[in-house]
Amino acid sequence: MEVEEQLTKLKELLNEIEDIKNAVNLLSWDQQTQMPPGGANDRGYQVSTLSGLAHQKFTSPEIGQLLQDLKPYSEQVDPDSNDARLIKVCSREFEKFSRVPTDLVAEIAQVTSEAYGVWEEARSESNFSKFQPYLAKIISLRRQYAECFPYDHIYDPLLDYYEPGLKTVEVQQIFKILRSKQVEIIQAIGESQQVDDSFLKQEFDENKQWEFGVKVISQFGYDWKRGRQDKSTHPFTIRLGHGDVRITTRVFPDNVTSALFSSTHECGHALYEQGIDPALNRTPLGEGASYALHESQSRLYENLISRSRDFWIHFYPKLQETFPAQLGNIDLETFYKGINRVQPSLVRVEADEATYNLHIMVRLEMEIALMEGSLEVADLPDAWNARMQDYLGVSPPDDRLGVLQDVHWSSGYFGYFPTYALGNLIASQIWERLKIDMPDLTSQIRSGQFGELREWLRLNIHQHGMKFDPQEIVERVTGSKVDPSAYLRYLEDKYTEIYAF
Amino acid sequence: MEVEEQLTKLKELLNEIEDIKNAVNLLSWDQQTQMPPGGANDRGYQVSTLSGLAHQKFTSPEIGQLLQDLKPYSEQVDPDSNDARLIKVCSREFEKFSRVPTDLVAEIAQVTSEAYGVWEEARSESNFSKFQPYLAKIISLRRQYAECFPYDHIYDPLLDYYEPGLKTVEVQQIFKILRSKQVEIIQAIGESQQVDDSFLKQEFDENKQWEFGVKVISQFGYDWKRGRQDKSTHPFTIRLGHGDVRITTRVFPDNVTSALFSSTHECGHALYEQGIDPALNRTPLGEGASYALHESQSRLYENLISRSRDFWIHFYPKLQETFPAQLGNIDLETFYKGINRVQPSLVRVEADEATYNLHIMVRLEMEIALMEGSLEVADLPDAWNARMQDYLGVSPPDDRLGVLQDVHWSSGYFGYFPTYALGNLIASQIWERLKIDMPDLTSQIRSGQFGELREWLRLNIHQHGMKFDPQEIVERVTGSKVDPSAYLRYLEDKYTEIYAF
Repeated sequence: MEVEEQLTKLKELLNEIEDIKNAVNLLSWDQQTQMPPGGANDRGYQVSTLSGLAHQKFTSPEIGQLLQDLKPYSEQVDPDSNDARLIKVCSREFEKFSRVPTDLVAEIAQVTSEAYGVWEEARSESNFSKFQPYLAKIISLRRQYAECFPYDHIYDPLLDYYEPGLKTVEVQQIFKILRSKQVEIIQAIGESQQVDDSFLKQEFDENKQWEFGVKVISQFGYDWKRGRQDKSTHPFTIRLGHGDVRITTRVFPDNVTSALFSSTHECGHALYEQGIDPALNRTPLGEGASYALHESQSRLYENLISRSRDFWIHFYPKLQETFPAQLGNIDLETFYKGINRVQPSLVRVEADEATYNLHIMVRLEMEIALMEGSLEVADLPDAWNARMQDYLGVSPPDDRLGVLQDVHWSSGYFGYFPTYALGNLIASQIWERLKIDMPDLTSQIRSGQFGELREWLRLNIHQHGMKFDPQEIVERVTGSKVDPSAYLRYLEDKYTEIYAF
Repeated sequence: MEVEEQLTKLKELLNEIEDIKNAVNLLSWDQQTQMPPGGANDRGYQVSTLSGLAHQKFTSPEIGQLLQDLKPYSEQVDPDSNDARLIKVCSREFEKFSRVPTDLVAEIAQVTSEAYGVWEEARSESNFSKFQPYLAKIISLRRQYAECFPYDHIYDPLLDYYEPGLKTVEVQQIFKILRSKQVEIIQAIGESQQVDDSFLKQEFDENKQWEFGVKVISQFGYDWKRGRQDKSTHPFTIRLGHGDVRITTRVFPDNVTSALFSSTHECGHALYEQGIDPALNRTPLGEGASYALHESQSRLYENLISRSRDFWIHFYPKLQETFPAQLGNIDLETFYKGINRVQPSLVRVEADEATYNLHIMVRLEMEIALMEGSLEVADLPDAWNARMQDYLGVSPPDDRLGVLQDVHWSSGYFGYFPTYALGNLIASQIWERLKIDMPDLTSQIRSGQFGELREWLRLNIHQHGMKFDPQEIVERVTGSKVDPSAYLRYLEDKYTEIYAF
């Protein structure tokens, strides 16, 4: 075959695999938002069959041969061209995926699909023992997965799945720096006068909350012609193609900001996916570069924007109009401090920015210990509760608010949690760069203008999809590797001002 | 391989194919009920890729070999056993599908998936020329499909797809008998005093209509734990597995029965699918035996039940309570006659029982002419309008209410329409048998009890899925082949009484 023919053939095969993976995404979206309970059993089979098929097709000898044959070509052309990058990224992924037997991939998909329903039940009943055998099975499968790779630490291959190249020891170092500094900040806050947030805990009409969130993310630039928002137990963003990037949220009637911050968070993810160059669609390059980089975008919109005073200078009068009885007498400054109140608490997704990373540390330690085998699954709830007490000074009254709170483990996502914390760090690094490039960013946000911001992110980050490695993008944009200092500066500045310490 | 091993292998392969087909069903359901417009392009690729994959897998040499090897075994065991029937049905389908190249199947899926969106637009704009090139392409692909088979008439292979063994000439004969008799009845009605149905055309709250329909189909026995109802342009039922059989409807605020009859119609389809023996799930036997038999179930619930006086003896007081301002002063008899008013009209799905089959005849003639090539696609709207005038004495003012009204052609469903009329005939045949087996059927319906009826249908028809041929099931249940006489008796009895001729 000629090079051109080989390239066309490779793309055809990759296109089909992307189609299958997008169908899996739809199966998953539907399962979490629409599916009746009776569908769970068959859905498990469907997800398993299609995931296995995508894996089998991607690791086929045909693709292996094409990638090998095309290697010289990829080294001749512009290394930043779509073709060169496609071959490079696929070769790396091919090498990685080829190590994992198709049967194992299918079994992980099958077990996790079933486990999702079990976790939902176990969580609502606060009954860890119901979930325990599934979790044990998932951990065993994840160990088998890790054993397919050479590693320094058994957790490395899991981390690498979400953040190519990242090592357990690096994450542990970053977290060590974070932990001591964050604990310092929390102590300083604990010694300051607490801010009032009692006004946030009133009755807020669910439909009005939903509508308010819709308005905000519309203003951020979420494209409704290429997406939709639904409700689910655990909010998520999912891509079914360049023209269909969906988000979900959940609404609590007694909390005015929870649904909003969920929506703005998922909107950050969605803007990333919606902003990827359409030329990369239906190829492995047509999605976000990594979980941490993705999380930097969601955190940027959720925290750096939606929890900022500048954002609320524009939106707070509108929120007051929406809920005059509840917020009419609360001034902007009180509201701003209230939504940024620091209070060690039980649930990660409701945690404030100052304590959030400590929740991640608990999970990271649990995951590493479970993978190492130094912690038995049966002992997990006690270990969780003990560590929550150590780091946050709180103790879950039950497993629903403790070890069962997150969907991730039921989905087999081990190695995922650290990316949330890394996302926080990267978001702050990007924010510092943004403020240099857009001197009037603050005044734009204060007047509800988010177009230029979105365009900057699209040009510098979103459009590239997976063409460049996440570290490469972070360095191109911010001038340095992932580094906790920008984040710690941000936290210190923000809370020194709010808590006056 | 041992026989047992071969059988296990065959089932494993068939299970995977069913998983893929169910994923295609979800892609389709989502496209028609949830998908944002931007998703259409990728969705076309996804449906095409997965349909092609299912076809390719089913027609693989591996399955061909297994079926051949298992033939002797299937002839030794009980011919009514699941295994023997599975091998028999799969062998027939294998032979049929093997004739059609995978590329053609994928192209049909791709073109029809795109055409669906175009049809939706063309229909809403009443612009046939927008849809015309897609329809021409679909017809050309359907001709290519037919040419893969030996046939007496080029339309035979299309008919056979929906109703195994049925020939064009047979359908034409049945329709000839129906046409003359139905025209007679319509003439007699035309010479009688018309009944009043003006009270049906008021403003009826959409949510209340929805809720009323939900109550009715719940009483019919639709299992909400294994299904859900959504809105779509064209109502349909879709199976995503034994535990997930979904229906859709559409609600018109100025018509109190349209949504209800759509819901009861789709409920009839869904009860069939929900009633299939779970042991047949994830195999080709785990769905209804044919389109006509399926349609007999939907027609039975929509017409023989939901348009009967007995049904309304129970439900009319409840409908009056739901819409007291609109129906409080309309008595049962007036209402019953009103909903059964015969009036030749433009839209098939809104047609009364006396004129319905004439709509099918128009479509059947168009399809045959288009396939034969005796009618050009460009001339279709005029031919359609002329035939509507001939048979029904009405002429569509635009293509939205004419040739663009149905989704079927955009989906490539040529040969499907006749099954609607055949379904009417079979429903009446089953109904005559039911009244013998359940002497108190009438009183059960009058008291809103539908459990025994559903059980009878489940035992005699539903549970078998595709184990037996449709003709075989009709003969087992009714004692005769598909035959128009029961239907004509039903029509005559019903309308003689309503119109007193």
